[in-house]
Amino acid sequence: MEREFVADLLARIPADPRLEVPPGDDAAVLRPPARARTVVTVDMLMEGTDFILGPDCQPAAVGHKALGVSLSDLAAMGARPEAAFVAVALPRRGGNAIGRGIADGIAALASVHGVALAGGDTNAWDGPLVVSTTLLGSVAPGRAWRRDGARPGDLIVVTGAFGGSLLGRHLRVVPRIREALAIAARYEVHAAIDCSDGLALDLARMMAASGTRGVVRTAAVPIHADARRLADRDGRSPLDHALGDGEDFELILALPPDAAEALAAAAGQPPLDLAITAIGTVEEGAGLVAEAPDGSRTPLEPQGYVHGFDS
Amino acid sequence: MEREFVADLLARIPADPRLEVPPGDDAAVLRPPARARTVVTVDMLMEGTDFILGPDCQPAAVGHKALGVSLSDLAAMGARPEAAFVAVALPRRGGNAIGRGIADGIAALASVHGVALAGGDTNAWDGPLVVSTTLLGSVAPGRAWRRDGARPGDLIVVTGAFGGSLLGRHLRVVPRIREALAIAARYEVHAAIDCSDGLALDLARMMAASGTRGVVRTAAVPIHADARRLADRDGRSPLDHALGDGEDFELILALPPDAAEALAAAAGQPPLDLAITAIGTVEEGAGLVAEAPDGSRTPLEPQGYVHGFDS
Repeated sequence: MEREFVADLLARIPADPRLEVPPGDDAAVLRPPARARTVVTVDMLMEGTDFILGPDCQPAAVGHKALGVSLSDLAAMGARPEAAFVAVALPRRGGNAIGRGIADGIAALASVHGVALAGGDTNAWDGPLVVSTTLLGSVAPGRAWRRDGARPGDLIVVTGAFGGSLLGRHLRVVPRIREALAIAARYEVHAAIDCSDGLALDLARMMAASGTRGVVRTAAVPIHADARRLADRDGRSPLDHALGDGEDFELILALPPDAAEALAAAAGQPPLDLAITAIGTVEEGAGLVAEAPDGSRTPLEPQGYVHGFDS
Repeated sequence: MEREFVADLLARIPADPRLEVPPGDDAAVLRPPARARTVVTVDMLMEGTDFILGPDCQPAAVGHKALGVSLSDLAAMGARPEAAFVAVALPRRGGNAIGRGIADGIAALASVHGVALAGGDTNAWDGPLVVSTTLLGSVAPGRAWRRDGARPGDLIVVTGAFGGSLLGRHLRVVPRIREALAIAARYEVHAAIDCSDGLALDLARMMAASGTRGVVRTAAVPIHADARRLADRDGRSPLDHALGDGEDFELILALPPDAAEALAAAAGQPPLDLAITAIGTVEEGAGLVAEAPDGSRTPLEPQGYVHGFDS
């Protein structure tokens, strides 16, 4: 089902040859790439939880973030994005303007990454704004990056820098799609996950899925300038922010040492013009440990955002 | 992203060979059927708008409806359902129990229609319950039923009966998947749509998309017993309810006369053991007209549910 918002969204983009039936029918009909697997992610963002509409967060920023977090999930699978669907519950008051802003943000980011906007569902209600994105991508059979493939001896490698996303970066998600596709084409990757809930928590998830222990050389963790700014304000350490804040939307990868070293050496030049840093190693065992420069180890408790219920 | 609710949902169903990567990763990886098109629909249901939780609407009924409306969209495309994704915003208070109930309803209906549950996104907040479903299906290239293919001379045929769904039927959606696949395999269908917002409104949408006029023989419209019960209460006519109430989730089809007559003759026996009724014809022109038994015609204003904004 789709009405005004979706019609407005679809009007912003050219017809896409991946769509067999023009948008506006009961469902979209896509031509998937030949012999590819279909990769699918769904994310829901809610006003008051994932964003607060206001001068620092206009509806276009919400649209950008909504598609951005789904793109980041596909990057973490090493998949190419193909088609997006957006369902919204718009506040009845001002909903048309909010819908137009969201469509602006989504259409701009979709254009950057070659995503066909293929449909969705428009609703109005008296509640807060809710945006749900569905993103379809493609990957060759058996080539999707999983989170359960890390092996003892692998190096743990991350893109970019971590911490302090709350200062605004969490809205301006830069999904690592191009980087992921470039890495997937050139290097052997054993496991991958994106950093949404916190570097330590997401890495712990990869280790738990893989049945391995992660050793993090804390001095090597790339700390974002935002983490230092936030630390100056609240007295927690920049490293704490880097390990725990989340919503960095960087890639966390496990690769064999040769591949990791080749990848790190390629960093800083197109198409990998960003920092790529080895922050630790995978070994037999379970959980996470922090390793200091003197080699001493302490348990590293996963920190990060965990969704909670009162009952 | 997925946490408790989705994990609970996925635990209820057996591993599905259509999933290349087990659920729980950053995204699902599906093996699509060879040489098929991918059909995708997204629907969002909100508490207070699409349902009101209470003794007559338990969480399992919400789960059933959420997947049911998406299945009805795929039926209207003549597509086979393959995999579903469910994103929820659960009320923080009581959210776990609500989530379990929704999962019950979804898993039961998915099992009936052979749908793989492949992932989703769990969220908790202080707002009302929101459920967004994404359903993927498959159809042979060029064989999806569109709403823009009706031609002058076609007969308009509907499944089931209409009106009064508000008395409870709107929650107990019976998606016409099996019937649609049986019809698609045997009969030439020019256009199709499902009745979600109202028989007249949805038929008017098909006529507008096709550039044709619909002539509805009002005496032929199959009227549900619920429409008569509701009419007894509110004084509107049963026909008004049948044309305007919506959420019947029946199929509205346009077929050439030979196919329509063969289809109507096959009704009442498996796999088409339901009423199938020709209610009118397609002709050149635009809009809808009602035709009385004496042949007199009056304009038929599309009635039904239109999503609205205050500004």
